[in-house]
Amino acid sequence: MLNFSFANPTKIHFGEQQIAKIKNEIPADANVLVTYGGGSIKSNGVYDQVVEALNEHTWFEFAGIEPNPSYQTCMKAVSVVKEKHIDFILAVGGGSVIDGSKFIAAAANYDGEPWDILAKGGIIKSAIALGAVLTLPATGSESNGNSVVSNLESHDKLPFASPLVLPKFAVLDPVVTYSLPERQVANGIVDAFVHAMEQYLTYDVGAKLQDRFAEGILMTLIEEGPKAFSDPDNYQVRANVMWSATMALNGLIGAGVPQDWATHMLGHEMTAVYGLDHAQTLAIVLPRMMAEQKETKRGKILQYADRVLGLDISDEEQAIDQAIAKTEAFFHSVNMPTRLSDYGLGAEVADKIVTQLERHGMTALGEREQVTLDKSRAILLASV
Amino acid sequence: MLNFSFANPTKIHFGEQQIAKIKNEIPADANVLVTYGGGSIKSNGVYDQVVEALNEHTWFEFAGIEPNPSYQTCMKAVSVVKEKHIDFILAVGGGSVIDGSKFIAAAANYDGEPWDILAKGGIIKSAIALGAVLTLPATGSESNGNSVVSNLESHDKLPFASPLVLPKFAVLDPVVTYSLPERQVANGIVDAFVHAMEQYLTYDVGAKLQDRFAEGILMTLIEEGPKAFSDPDNYQVRANVMWSATMALNGLIGAGVPQDWATHMLGHEMTAVYGLDHAQTLAIVLPRMMAEQKETKRGKILQYADRVLGLDISDEEQAIDQAIAKTEAFFHSVNMPTRLSDYGLGAEVADKIVTQLERHGMTALGEREQVTLDKSRAILLASV
Repeated sequence: MLNFSFANPTKIHFGEQQIAKIKNEIPADANVLVTYGGGSIKSNGVYDQVVEALNEHTWFEFAGIEPNPSYQTCMKAVSVVKEKHIDFILAVGGGSVIDGSKFIAAAANYDGEPWDILAKGGIIKSAIALGAVLTLPATGSESNGNSVVSNLESHDKLPFASPLVLPKFAVLDPVVTYSLPERQVANGIVDAFVHAMEQYLTYDVGAKLQDRFAEGILMTLIEEGPKAFSDPDNYQVRANVMWSATMALNGLIGAGVPQDWATHMLGHEMTAVYGLDHAQTLAIVLPRMMAEQKETKRGKILQYADRVLGLDISDEEQAIDQAIAKTEAFFHSVNMPTRLSDYGLGAEVADKIVTQLERHGMTALGEREQVTLDKSRAILLASV
Repeated sequence: MLNFSFANPTKIHFGEQQIAKIKNEIPADANVLVTYGGGSIKSNGVYDQVVEALNEHTWFEFAGIEPNPSYQTCMKAVSVVKEKHIDFILAVGGGSVIDGSKFIAAAANYDGEPWDILAKGGIIKSAIALGAVLTLPATGSESNGNSVVSNLESHDKLPFASPLVLPKFAVLDPVVTYSLPERQVANGIVDAFVHAMEQYLTYDVGAKLQDRFAEGILMTLIEEGPKAFSDPDNYQVRANVMWSATMALNGLIGAGVPQDWATHMLGHEMTAVYGLDHAQTLAIVLPRMMAEQKETKRGKILQYADRVLGLDISDEEQAIDQAIAKTEAFFHSVNMPTRLSDYGLGAEVADKIVTQLERHGMTALGEREQVTLDKSRAILLASV
C-alpha cells in the first residue's frame, strides 16, 4: 500500500425525499445561485423540490450549463455571481452541471484570467461555497474536488482539482433518476465503471482492501447496471447504481494505490474533437487499452477476471482475452457501443487525437507512463 | 437500501513517517494536550516522533488513560484542560486513549455534571478540538464520533456519540504496530471483524455495495490477520489490518443498512463486570449470537458463508453451522479464545450479565430487537 492522505468531508443525504434537507445545509442568510442544465429538472419535479426547500432563502438561478460544460457558459454565470453577490452555489444536475459550477465557484474568486485555472494550473486560493443535488449518477463530482471544463473556441477539454470546490453537501435521491433518458443512464454506468477501473486495474501494491472495495463497485455495476434498463423504476437498482457511482470517484478506492487515467485522457480528446459523450469514448478506448497494456497489467487483469467476472484463470492468456471481451460485453449490456465505427468514425481519428495528446503534453500516459503516443495511436486504430 | 446521511470529515494521513504531519494539522497557536496511556509510546518511538512534530507548539501531556478508559481518570484530565487553557487534544494511542480523549474533549466544555453525557444522554454543544495518532488498529475511534467510557465505582460501561468529538485528523502509521503485544493485536483484529459483522450480518435491504464493502473488510481481516502473528514486521499485512479496522467503523459500511450491536451490548457488560478485554467478550458472544439468531439472520449468514468464507451453501443448515464454526476458527487463528471457560468463568455469568442488561434497559437487542433477556441468558449459557 502506498502512503496517502485522504479526507472526504462532503455530507451525503441519500434516499427518497432528501432534497428537502438542503434547507438546513445552506446558511439562512446566503445569497444562493441555483445552477442547472437544459431544464429536465423542470419536468421531473426536481426543480419544484428545490424551490420548495429554498422557500426561506434568497436565491437566483442560472440555467443552460451544457454537457461538457463550456468555459464560455461558465463565465456568464461568473458575471451573475458577481452581480448578485452570490455566496452559495447550489448545482442541480449531473456531473456537467456540478463540474461547471465548481469552475464558476473558483473563477468568481480568481485573481487573474480564470482560463488559467485550466490551462496553466492557476492556484485556487478561495471559492464560493458549493452544494449539489445530483440527478445523474456518473462522475462522482458531487463529492470530489475534480472538474473538467471545455473551451468551445480552442477545442480544449481540461481538468482542474481543488479541495476548495468540494461540495459541502450532496443530495442523492435515486427516484429522480427514474426519468433519465437511456443514453444518460448508460453514460453514467459506464463512466462509474471506468472510474473504478482506472484506480484498480494497474499493478499490485498490496492494498487488499482498496482492491476489494473497487471490486465491489465493479460487481455491483455489472449486476445492477442492466436492470436500470429492464426495470427502470426499481428503487434498489437505481440506489445501488447511484451509490456505486459516488463511491467510484470520491477518493476512497484511489487512496494508497497507483492510478491509470490513460483511457480518460484519450477520451477527453475524443470528446473535444468529435463531440462524443464522455462515457462513449471510455467504452471505445478501455477494451483496447486493456489489450495494449495486458503485460504491464497482467496480474490485475487476472485478479479482475477471477474475482469480478468469476472466470477460470488457469489458462492466463485465455482468461485475459475473456476478461477484455466480457468488459466490452458489459458495456453492450447497458446499451453502450464500443467502436469508433458505431459513430461513423474511422482510422482518421488516430492521427487527429495523437496530435491533440501531443499538444497537451500527454506523451506518456498511465500508471507506469508507458502509453506513448505510438501506443495511443495503436489503441485508436484498434478501436475502429 | 435505507435512507441515510453520511459524512466523515476526518483527514487520514496513512503510512510510514506520517506522524510528522501533525505539525501542520494543529493550529500553530493552540495549547495542546497530548493524551496517552501506559507509556508504550515511549518505548516504541511514537512519543519521540510526536515531540519532534510538536517542537514549535505549546503542549502539555496527560498520561495514564487506561484500557476501558475510566470516567475517574478522564475527569483528572479535564482539570488539566481547564487549568492549562487547552484548546487542542492530541490523543496518542489506541481506541481507549482516543475514546477517553473524546470524553475529556466533551466534558471540558459541558455545562453540568459530565457523567450525565454517558448516563443520561446529556447533549454535547461543544467540545475541544481533537486529533489522533493511532497505535492500535481496532476500534475505528480515530475517525468516528463514538466513545465508550467506564465508571470504576458503579461498574457501568456506557457509550456516547457526537460529531463534535470526531477527530479532525488521524495519523495511521502501520510501522508503529509492529511492537504491539500479541494480545492487543488479537484484540484489534477481532474488534474490527465484529464491527463489520454488526453492520453486515442483519437482513437484506438491497444495499449491495455496502454488503460488498463489509465483505471486503471481513475477507481482508481473515486473510491478513493471522499473518500479523506469523510475520509481524510485514508492512503490507499491518497496513491492511490497520486500514480495515478504520473502515470497519467510520460510518461507511453502516450507512443505509440495519445494524445489530447485540454482541457489543453483551460484551460491554462482561467487560464492566469481569474485566475481560472488549474483544475477548466479542469473540465469546458472536458465535453463540449467530447460532441463536440464525433464523432471523439466515439470508445474510448464507451470503457470508458463500462470499466471505467460500463455503458450499447448497445444504443451508450445514452451511450455517460451518459458517459459525469457521468464524470461531478465525478467532482462534488470531490467538483469541472464544469460551467463558477459557477465562475461568462459568454459568454464573449468565444471570449476572442479564441483571446488568436489565438495569441498563437492554431488554430487546439487535436489528429486530429480538434478543430478549431470555435469549441473552441462553447465549451466555451456551458460551461457557
